Amino acid sequence: MRQIYLDYNATTPVAPTVFEAMRPYFTDHYGNPSSTHVLGLAASQAIEDAREKVAMLIGANVDEVFFTANGTESNNLAIKGVCQTENGYSGHIIISAIEHPATLEPAKFLQRMGCDVSIVGTDKYGVVDPDEVAKHLRDDTRLISIMHANNEIGTIQPIREIADLVKDHETLVHTDAAQSIGKIRAHVNELRLDMMTIAGHKLYAPKGIGALYVRSGTKISPIIHGAGHEQGLRPSTENTPYIVGLGAAATLALRSLDENRIRIRNLRDELYSRLATSIEGLSFNGPEEGRLPNTLSVNFPRVVGAELLAECQGIFASTGSACHSGTTNMSNTLKAIGLPEEVARGTVRLSLGWNTSQEEIQIAADTLISAWESMTS
Amino acid sequence: MRQIYLDYNATTPVAPTVFEAMRPYFTDHYGNPSSTHVLGLAASQAIEDAREKVAMLIGANVDEVFFTANGTESNNLAIKGVCQTENGYSGHIIISAIEHPATLEPAKFLQRMGCDVSIVGTDKYGVVDPDEVAKHLRDDTRLISIMHANNEIGTIQPIREIADLVKDHETLVHTDAAQSIGKIRAHVNELRLDMMTIAGHKLYAPKGIGALYVRSGTKISPIIHGAGHEQGLRPSTENTPYIVGLGAAATLALRSLDENRIRIRNLRDELYSRLATSIEGLSFNGPEEGRLPNTLSVNFPRVVGAELLAECQGIFASTGSACHSGTTNMSNTLKAIGLPEEVARGTVRLSLGWNTSQEEIQIAADTLISAWESMTS
Repeated sequence: MRQIYLDYNATTPVAPTVFEAMRPYFTDHYGNPSSTHVLGLAASQAIEDAREKVAMLIGANVDEVFFTANGTESNNLAIKGVCQTENGYSGHIIISAIEHPATLEPAKFLQRMGCDVSIVGTDKYGVVDPDEVAKHLRDDTRLISIMHANNEIGTIQPIREIADLVKDHETLVHTDAAQSIGKIRAHVNELRLDMMTIAGHKLYAPKGIGALYVRSGTKISPIIHGAGHEQGLRPSTENTPYIVGLGAAATLALRSLDENRIRIRNLRDELYSRLATSIEGLSFNGPEEGRLPNTLSVNFPRVVGAELLAECQGIFASTGSACHSGTTNMSNTLKAIGLPEEVARGTVRLSLGWNTSQEEIQIAADTLISAWESMTS
Repeated sequence: MRQIYLDYNATTPVAPTVFEAMRPYFTDHYGNPSSTHVLGLAASQAIEDAREKVAMLIGANVDEVFFTANGTESNNLAIKGVCQTENGYSGHIIISAIEHPATLEPAKFLQRMGCDVSIVGTDKYGVVDPDEVAKHLRDDTRLISIMHANNEIGTIQPIREIADLVKDHETLVHTDAAQSIGKIRAHVNELRLDMMTIAGHKLYAPKGIGALYVRSGTKISPIIHGAGHEQGLRPSTENTPYIVGLGAAATLALRSLDENRIRIRNLRDELYSRLATSIEGLSFNGPEEGRLPNTLSVNFPRVVGAELLAECQGIFASTGSACHSGTTNMSNTLKAIGLPEEVARGTVRLSLGWNTSQEEIQIAADTLISAWESMTS
């Protein structure tokens, strides 16, 4: 049976050129990058080359890119790392109501440790209003952490406008760009960011590699303690193959931004249009503009999303965010946009990627329509 | 030029069968293990298979193995995770003077956060005396964390005797087995451990994967916060390829334990014997027995270790521990065993591995001897 993957927001395959770039670092150039002999220096050089490629993708300086194990660790480092004091945690932070658990849970941890946390809601499109953020700003606000683009419905946040709020404050601005990098432009100076999270596995690099951009001069403490790797901010022997892979993926992403904006967006819109033509009462979540070009969160009327997908064998998609599926609770994002529960029951997230073809879109639309028709007739 | 790698304690190459086991999970079985569709379930099943293999290597139950990004993270999780309270950190912990920074630094972090830390010394062979540990035990001792085998000189600690000290206490026992796993038997019940750290890249799996054994019923909190992966103890989308790789490496390690004990030890002893025959005043660090079979920390008289190695092109080894080389300070381990500084200047760590051949040992010995002779004549 033909398999059609429409779950690129959950994770991406490793791109073939990314795999080829990584391959020699497993069995040939395997030296410990901290070793001072030739094998170590070769690994260390490969890491610095990759750092440059990641920096180029996001408009950072090379020494502002820190490699981590994943987006979750990057978010934890950004959020806890700037609220850590000599002997505890302090300060006030602002997050949005539609953050991934990798942001929400570190914030809750800080709350238990004595920090204050404000959670800002969104409008019905999932957009955070900068004026709402401004209302929560305090003298001791240490950090605003609001995702660049939402994983479920694709809403792109007005990060620059939010960052502009604090340009005369001591407040730092972090964004979780796990879901936006490679899909839309995410440039740290254009967005005026102090920190930005990158997750490899949303970007055709493997699961198990991430990065955190940290602007030079930002006061931040490590959250994992050990030897002095990554300028002392993130210890542990470097994962050379995956770092090289993230570098290769960054180069691919930089080249494919236009393609994403145009080709993938057109396919996404064709998919919605095909579905909407046949399914009366269909709707989608998020704004028409200001949404990730690959993301279609679509509400099928009168069916349960999971049951619909179960009828569409060979079509791989999500009902909630894959990172926390298995629960039948309505996601925080769908709650925040005020989607009625009976509508949210039929929500399916179809997310496209580099390998998505027009033929796949046609088959996927036909399959979803047939399944919906047989379930509702 | 022939390259002879004698730095297996710094890191190992990925074994070819480990690489082959991982390969399909990059580009084919790439689903997010949390996804409920077929691609997700395949990944999830592969992870559980790998967990079983790791559990088998160390004598654990499957649900007692938690995957992390590396040994450093495992140590941090073990040490901070059990000292974390509802709103801070508390308790007393005992470590040894020869721990890796991945243990020492989390302990120092806890000290800054209000915990007490005791550091127990070693004898001249690098052995921690259980009676010394006993002297430091307090009612509020939450954890003893002492490495299973030392990375620099190979000393194997009397972990079971130390664990027996606390069998009627509430104190937990953790060991960093990064350096011992795969080289000697490390069985959690024989050692009576509550927690044990595994690092993939010392075990012919890649850099960037680790595991923590946590005995069922142990009260431990996550140190990275996010979604509910790994029974809620370690969030982030699972690194399927590397987890599969660690499982494959565990299976190989289980099969090769005898080989390590005999073949590699014989080669190690032959190497020392060849060197000692030609170099008057040569000595080695650590005990004759109770030492990792692959490790030879050897003191070359009247030369600086780094300069000697620089003369031996094609021979890859360390002078200190590779994780923190680049500094010329005497390592904590060499200090703890009371090695005089003038002897420590000539210390070289030669560590053998699965690919080491007798021919390599002969060439390495000849090369080291020639270089030493030309430097001292």
